[in-house]
Amino acid sequence: MASITPTSPNTIRSTHRPTLKPLVVPERLLLGPGPSNADPQVIAAMDQQPIGHFDPDYLVMMDEVQELLRYAWQTDNALTYAIAGTGSAAMEATLANAIEPGDRVLVAVKGYFGHRLVAMAERYGGAVQTIHKPWGEAFTLAELTAALDTYQPAVLAIVHAETSTGVRQPLEGLGAACRAHGCLLIVDTVTSLGGLPIFLDDWQVDLAYSCSQKGLSCAPGISPFTMSPRAVEKLERRSHPVANWYLDATLLRQYWGPPRVYHHTAPVNLTYALREALRLLAEEGLAARWQRHQKNAEYLWAGLADLGLTCHVSEALRLPTLTTVRVPDGVDAKAVIRKLLADYNLEIGGGLGDLAGKVWRIGLMGYNSQPQNVDTLIKALGEVLRAVA
Amino acid sequence: MASITPTSPNTIRSTHRPTLKPLVVPERLLLGPGPSNADPQVIAAMDQQPIGHFDPDYLVMMDEVQELLRYAWQTDNALTYAIAGTGSAAMEATLANAIEPGDRVLVAVKGYFGHRLVAMAERYGGAVQTIHKPWGEAFTLAELTAALDTYQPAVLAIVHAETSTGVRQPLEGLGAACRAHGCLLIVDTVTSLGGLPIFLDDWQVDLAYSCSQKGLSCAPGISPFTMSPRAVEKLERRSHPVANWYLDATLLRQYWGPPRVYHHTAPVNLTYALREALRLLAEEGLAARWQRHQKNAEYLWAGLADLGLTCHVSEALRLPTLTTVRVPDGVDAKAVIRKLLADYNLEIGGGLGDLAGKVWRIGLMGYNSQPQNVDTLIKALGEVLRAVA
Repeated sequence: MASITPTSPNTIRSTHRPTLKPLVVPERLLLGPGPSNADPQVIAAMDQQPIGHFDPDYLVMMDEVQELLRYAWQTDNALTYAIAGTGSAAMEATLANAIEPGDRVLVAVKGYFGHRLVAMAERYGGAVQTIHKPWGEAFTLAELTAALDTYQPAVLAIVHAETSTGVRQPLEGLGAACRAHGCLLIVDTVTSLGGLPIFLDDWQVDLAYSCSQKGLSCAPGISPFTMSPRAVEKLERRSHPVANWYLDATLLRQYWGPPRVYHHTAPVNLTYALREALRLLAEEGLAARWQRHQKNAEYLWAGLADLGLTCHVSEALRLPTLTTVRVPDGVDAKAVIRKLLADYNLEIGGGLGDLAGKVWRIGLMGYNSQPQNVDTLIKALGEVLRAVA
Repeated sequence: MASITPTSPNTIRSTHRPTLKPLVVPERLLLGPGPSNADPQVIAAMDQQPIGHFDPDYLVMMDEVQELLRYAWQTDNALTYAIAGTGSAAMEATLANAIEPGDRVLVAVKGYFGHRLVAMAERYGGAVQTIHKPWGEAFTLAELTAALDTYQPAVLAIVHAETSTGVRQPLEGLGAACRAHGCLLIVDTVTSLGGLPIFLDDWQVDLAYSCSQKGLSCAPGISPFTMSPRAVEKLERRSHPVANWYLDATLLRQYWGPPRVYHHTAPVNLTYALREALRLLAEEGLAARWQRHQKNAEYLWAGLADLGLTCHVSEALRLPTLTTVRVPDGVDAKAVIRKLLADYNLEIGGGLGDLAGKVWRIGLMGYNSQPQNVDTLIKALGEVLRAVA
């Protein structure tokens, strides 16, 4: 019991006062579904004191982030900014801002994050309908168009790069079909932004979100978000306020642009990091970035085949950022993951949901998409598989 | 126009591809309402690669953060963790988890953040009633108890340390009154945690939240949150799911403790920072920390008096973390703020809402509560006031 200040009759308890040493963080090579290792220049950018969230230098940085995000997504959307939360917050932001209570919402589910979209959409009062594909496949445009005809939704939500399955969902033609049906199109680009081709405006996508810690090579905790003029028009016509204050685009856009109204205290150091990550992306260029990811993924797939392992997804639909590999019969998937982490400081992911125990998930994202990381992984995985066999 | 990848018929546009230099952040002394400068050891802790959000080392760190938060707040609450967002997200988390649609909610408003509680509570379907005090005063226990009698609310929300006014709201006895009325008590400790006495359990507070970048001397973007067993009991009895997925405590507690179910990708580097900030708080000890803040605030108040300036709040209710100073007649409040930033790299805040243009807000929080910062500020402010006079 320590002594107390004169203003208080209470005594300070030391019940929950552990004596801890300064933080020691292990060095890991993160080749799972994310977070990935950040670019060292991005980490260095965070290593500075915060400045104020209305500092003139900070406002410039906000503008830069917005412009660089437009490049990364290939969009002219004025309403493009970063959410002060992780990718799931940005996911929720698209639904909160697009859905009014009673709106018909169609979710195309082909993995874990499709189910998450359903769970969130229901909380915003959407009348949610779903269509499904097995985990490891994508929808055809015909299937999606037929579902638009059947359900006549106000909003369609679909995942571009399913982090749970490693599948790339082709999106060409879907935006046009949505417009023909008077429907807004929400696309999850969490595992695609900065890693594979995205043309948000050409594809006529209305709302999109992503994360920072995958293709963008930034630390996690800040998340890209964008809305098309068409989606903004619906936002401005709403008869109910957006049900989520923190993610309300009608408020946030007044901070990210004129009149610069206070909303929240920005995650300043993460903005430093995201600005640097996006600057490095613009420096490398999208074409080079996407080609690098594709090339290193193909190198990984060849290495996995040499180990006698099978990819879960057909090559045409396989993500360059994230590969699902089938766990061979008789192998304990979790034991392999634990041994890679404990003996090699190397993280890969296990399966989620329908694929739990059946696949490993191997990420080559952003800064980590390098041939020497493939070499390290293939060597370690081969050794561990021989050890557990 | 760059060449495109074979999988896409689209062309990459460089419309939004600015050529930027690496980030340069100005060095500021942040003596406004927040963010404050972080402890250099906290910034150094962020300067490491992320690890996975299920890494065994990360799970240990999560447990440490929870335990250290219990110490900081003087609570035994099992459900105590950090929200992956800024203080406003944690504010919204308390309302989202405490309010069911139709619940009577009473908000005691005596500044900007009281109004924010109202705006948020309404979005969660609360039947919101308010009581008001002028900006610069606090409620008496008798006033609050009378309002409980009148409105019979299910939830009462009140700000402990109003960042817009610099007022400390005495809370002794309020928790007992709430229990007698079958009401949950939500307390905003954004500008008090780590800076002045808080005894959450002695005061019988049910839900509380804070931020990282003030009394805790951490970077912004991650925010303390806690619920008492009584609040958890109401949570478990809910007939509607929590209307906010990202902030839903029924999901988050399954990640912050067993069964360790995936919810979101944690803001790993900010967790490093918060863990270090809280470790440093435990090392200094609450009694020493609170006394340091009080002593340096009194030193500031004396210096302001020497400049002929008047504090807006009576000394008994004045926060040690944040002081509101009246702008002398004829002085342009914003011009002084701009000049301090431009010529001295020193940030102080302006007034919000009812106090816009009428006060400056000067923070001495966490690491920044040091006598030499008071000396720097008083010298600079004196020079600027003479220059603009």
